[in-house]
Amino acid sequence: MKIALLGGTGDYGEGLALRWAHDTPHTVVIGSREQEKAEAKAQEYEQEVQGRGVETTIRGMSNVDAAAAADVTVLAVPPYHVSDTIEAISETLEEGDILVSPATGMKRDEDGFHYHRPGAGSVTRVAADAAPDTIPVVGAFHSLAAGRLADLDVELGIDTLLLADDEDAKDTVRELAESIDGVRPLDAGGIGNAAEVESITPLLINVAQNNDDAHDLGVQFR
Amino acid sequence: MKIALLGGTGDYGEGLALRWAHDTPHTVVIGSREQEKAEAKAQEYEQEVQGRGVETTIRGMSNVDAAAAADVTVLAVPPYHVSDTIEAISETLEEGDILVSPATGMKRDEDGFHYHRPGAGSVTRVAADAAPDTIPVVGAFHSLAAGRLADLDVELGIDTLLLADDEDAKDTVRELAESIDGVRPLDAGGIGNAAEVESITPLLINVAQNNDDAHDLGVQFR
Repeated sequence: MKIALLGGTGDYGEGLALRWAHDTPHTVVIGSREQEKAEAKAQEYEQEVQGRGVETTIRGMSNVDAAAAADVTVLAVPPYHVSDTIEAISETLEEGDILVSPATGMKRDEDGFHYHRPGAGSVTRVAADAAPDTIPVVGAFHSLAAGRLADLDVELGIDTLLLADDEDAKDTVRELAESIDGVRPLDAGGIGNAAEVESITPLLINVAQNNDDAHDLGVQFR
Repeated sequence: MKIALLGGTGDYGEGLALRWAHDTPHTVVIGSREQEKAEAKAQEYEQEVQGRGVETTIRGMSNVDAAAAADVTVLAVPPYHVSDTIEAISETLEEGDILVSPATGMKRDEDGFHYHRPGAGSVTRVAADAAPDTIPVVGAFHSLAAGRLADLDVELGIDTLLLADDEDAKDTVRELAESIDGVRPLDAGGIGNAAEVESITPLLINVAQNNDDAHDLGVQFR
């Protein structure tokens, strides 16, 4: 499968790109609003994976070209760029394509990080509202710490929660999640359940900041 | 230490009562608005624990008498009864006593369960606002599934998150949590971080309802 990581030059996109390129036969494309930046990062990721003896080709493109090339497009962009990123790529999306939303809104105060719930109810819902009617959106990959994902020496052993109103799209993203070693996808239901899932991200930061030897935390349901 | 479980006749109070009585030397007191109900449940729990060869005495009392007898009082009551329960017991609380809030607000729609955030910001904050100024409130034990707690044959292997603005009180509750086999307390910071912690409870229900072989889920941070 071809996976585009829009905003793939950031920490989070890097982690997912490296894992898919290293652990799976899927083709990874890095998207950025600046094509040159995407190309540079793609080359960097490719070298990192090839340096571990895994043959892979990672290409860098503009967000629009990356989405056009892909079957599954991951919106690894800040929450306030989810809508305009979808708008920018929407004409290139074809029936059968899937959008994945891993972003969460956060704000910070003196106690710690907090979920900043969008008026629409969740960032996943914002994405679903912005997407063309024929293109399903799946919420996933919220609770995977970027630093840990990007360090291929670290075994993950963590869960990720899936949210979608389209079961076929959810199945596809479940397979993509499962294809990363040490990631177990669990079904969290429809997009209406996204706020509680997106709330885990600030919680993980708070727990990491308040406990010794806890950083880049993930979560496991058991 | 003496622990009172107000609302201790419910599922959640039962689980904590059995675990503390079985795993620790702490004295457990069951509180209820109806003293007779508390006495009957206390006897039932005592027999369950003694049937496993552990000597223990569990007494049942009115909520007010239970809180008066205890060093640490757990408000195992529905969220909408947290304020009036604290009001009912507040005259019996003495300096050095600690209140523990495990409750969370939930509402349900067609997708699943959702966090119903109180106007004050969290149920833990509601408890802190209702408590006398000298009595610290600690949020804890939100993410322990009642059915699993109450089945002493089940090994837990799960985390619970602590929230408090009083570090000494947090330390005391940390010790109480650690004294239950298979529970690891983690610090989630101040009460201002409670909403993200309380949001885990509806999420655990949603995940349990959407996955085979997942029920009475807990969570582990790793």
